[in-house]
This record gives sequence, structure tokens and C-alpha cells, in this order.
Amino acid sequence: MRTVVPFAVSKPKTRLSSVLTDVECREFARAMRSDVLSALREIDRDPEILATAELADPFDATVTVDDRPLDPAVNDVLATTNEPVAVVMADLALVTSDALERLFASDADVVLAPGRGGGTNAFVARHPEFRVDYHDASIRDHRRIAKNLTDDVVEIDSFRLATDVDEPTDLAEVLLHGEGEAVDWLEDAGFERSLEDGRVGLSR
Amino acid sequence: MRTVVPFAVSKPKTRLSSVLTDVECREFARAMRSDVLSALREIDRDPEILATAELADPFDATVTVDDRPLDPAVNDVLATTNEPVAVVMADLALVTSDALERLFASDADVVLAPGRGGGTNAFVARHPEFRVDYHDASIRDHRRIAKNLTDDVVEIDSFRLATDVDEPTDLAEVLLHGEGEAVDWLEDAGFERSLEDGRVGLSR
Repeated sequence: MRTVVPFAVSKPKTRLSSVLTDVECREFARAMRSDVLSALREIDRDPEILATAELADPFDATVTVDDRPLDPAVNDVLATTNEPVAVVMADLALVTSDALERLFASDADVVLAPGRGGGTNAFVARHPEFRVDYHDASIRDHRRIAKNLTDDVVEIDSFRLATDVDEPTDLAEVLLHGEGEAVDWLEDAGFERSLEDGRVGLSR
Repeated sequence: MRTVVPFAVSKPKTRLSSVLTDVECREFARAMRSDVLSALREIDRDPEILATAELADPFDATVTVDDRPLDPAVNDVLATTNEPVAVVMADLALVTSDALERLFASDADVVLAPGRGGGTNAFVARHPEFRVDYHDASIRDHRRIAKNLTDDVVEIDSFRLATDVDEPTDLAEVLLHGEGEAVDWLEDAGFERSLEDGRVGLSR
């Protein structure tokens, strides 16, 4: 199985720009990506980075560069690969090998891991005709696309896989539950949990 | 095992008041509670409601009234019950019997299901001295309390158990993933998903 981790090189995590500088956004995105790669390797996967441009920062995985948007880039991988394909987003800062193990444990034709806000944070496609459409509420589209191909569709109910880090409030989840480089980076950068209206927020 | 579902009668879901009237808040809270009770019964649990006052609305479960705040009310249950106790929040509108099955499948001394924003949305306590402290980032406190008692502590990684419904943005998750009365109620009330900055939002 190919395991692909898409990564936007030019403008990672722009919605974090209210709390992080551009340089910090890049550093933090790299730390999250490193956590995802590490967790995949812990369960003996060999992840490849699918990057929008050559990586300027240090990396330690095979890199394929495709400057097209996410949909055509991922769909090209799906169309040209004669084996199952897993796609795992690079911003899953809470990911653990246990959570990913559940993604790979199912042998369904299509395994979907929904993200908060309607995204699709990871999937495994064993059906050769499965294609992605990441716009809007992509989990709804991916459910529909998969179910048009096969009845053998499974969803993984995981908070860790559901939590992609896009917005400042997401950083609080990393401080609460993170176990890798991303939480270390946030703590080194001076972020702390604070309490806001009964939910955990963020201060620096 | 006793399975307890706490329920605040007087002011349920006040943080939804920007999008729901008081009457609607009560109706929607009742629909969510009904979904939680149904999912528990599907896996042969016999849930009791732990209510802050007599229920004015229809209900179909044993009700214990305790007008104290959540911590002393739940801790009284824990202190006076000579068997394992499960506590499942009433506002888990995405809950399914599969998700709850995972909570009960572990035989650990303490099983915790974290909620978004640092909460603790469900737990099973088999250790007689486990007590709750729901203030602030309760999952941190509950981890600490449990680990001071036993090494046998497990966390359930479930998006469905992690998603309690407190805020308007949470309603979008119900529209995306709900399977019971709560999503029916929202749809009947005219709520629809809309797209906001790449994540799914809400319109009415």
C-alpha cells in the first residue's frame, strides 16, 4: 500500500496567522508533519510526502512534487497506483500510532476518517476507482463517491484523526492531547492553556 | 453497572441561545438526551437520568433528582454505589451504540472519553475511589485522579464521544454526522449546513 501525506509548501496554516508569524506557521506545520510521519512509521508504513513544491525545510521521507491543487494531485496518485492507497493529512497533531492502526486495520474497500467541520482527514482506498473531492464538506462527498462504487465503506470514529489543526482554538487541543513534536513546539513557543467560557483556550 | 446520564433541567444549553430560543434549547436538549438513552439501550444498558430538578418534559427512564452542582451529585453516586458506575453526558448528539460499546468494552479500572475543549464526556469507573472534578480542563484532572488510584486507566479515542454540543458551531457536526432525534429536530427547525471559510457552518 502507498501511504501519501499531502503537504502545502507555500502557505501552510494561514488560518493560524493571527497567533503565529509566517515563519512560525512553517515551523509548526513541519512539526505536525513530522508527528504524522513518525506515527505512520511506528506501524511500519513507509509514508511519502506529496508536496506542492520542493521542500526547503528538512525532511526525511520520499517527496513527490505536484504543484496542482490537492484534488488533481491526489487523484493522480489514485489513478496511477496499482495497489491500495492511503492518504493521511499532515496537520493531524494529535495523531498516534494507535489511531492510525485503526485506519489500516479495516480491510474495507474504502475507509474514511472524518475530520471536524466536515473534512476528510485520512482514508484508505482499496477500490481502484475511488477519487477525492476535498471541497466543502468533503466527508459527505467521499461517502457518496465511495458508496457509488461499493457497499464496503467503513468510517473510523477517532477524535485524534478528526482533529486537524487549522485555527487557533485547535492549538488548545494540541496542548491537551498532543504527544509529539507539535506540542513540544507550542510549549517552547510559550503557549499555554487558559480557560475561556468553560472550554480550554490558549494564551501566550 | 449503573449507567448515569446527568441532565441540567433549568438552563440547558445556554450557549446555544444565540441561535435557539429558550423553548428550542429545551426541546433540542431533550432530543439529544433521547439519542443518548437510545444508544445506551441498544447495547443493553439501563440508563438512569440524574437530573437537577423534576423533569417537566416527557422522559422514559428512571430519574434521580439532585439539585446540587454536577460534581457533588456525580460524586455522591460514585460514593454510594457498590458496583461500577458509567457516566455519559446527555449532549452527545453524535453518539452511536458502536461508540458507546467501545467505552464499555474496556475492563480498565477507569475508562475516560475526552471531550473537545478539555472536557470529559463519558467515563466508566470500576475503582471505588474514583471521583470527578468537572471544572476547567476536566480530562486533565480526571487523568490525574485516576492515575493516582491505579495504573489501569484507558482513554477512548472517539470523535462521536468527544463531540458534546455546546455552541452553534457544534450544530454543524450534528447535521453532518447525527443519526437520531437531535439531527431530525435541527432539520425540522430549518437548520442547514453552509460553508464558512472551508469548514462547514450553519444557516437557518
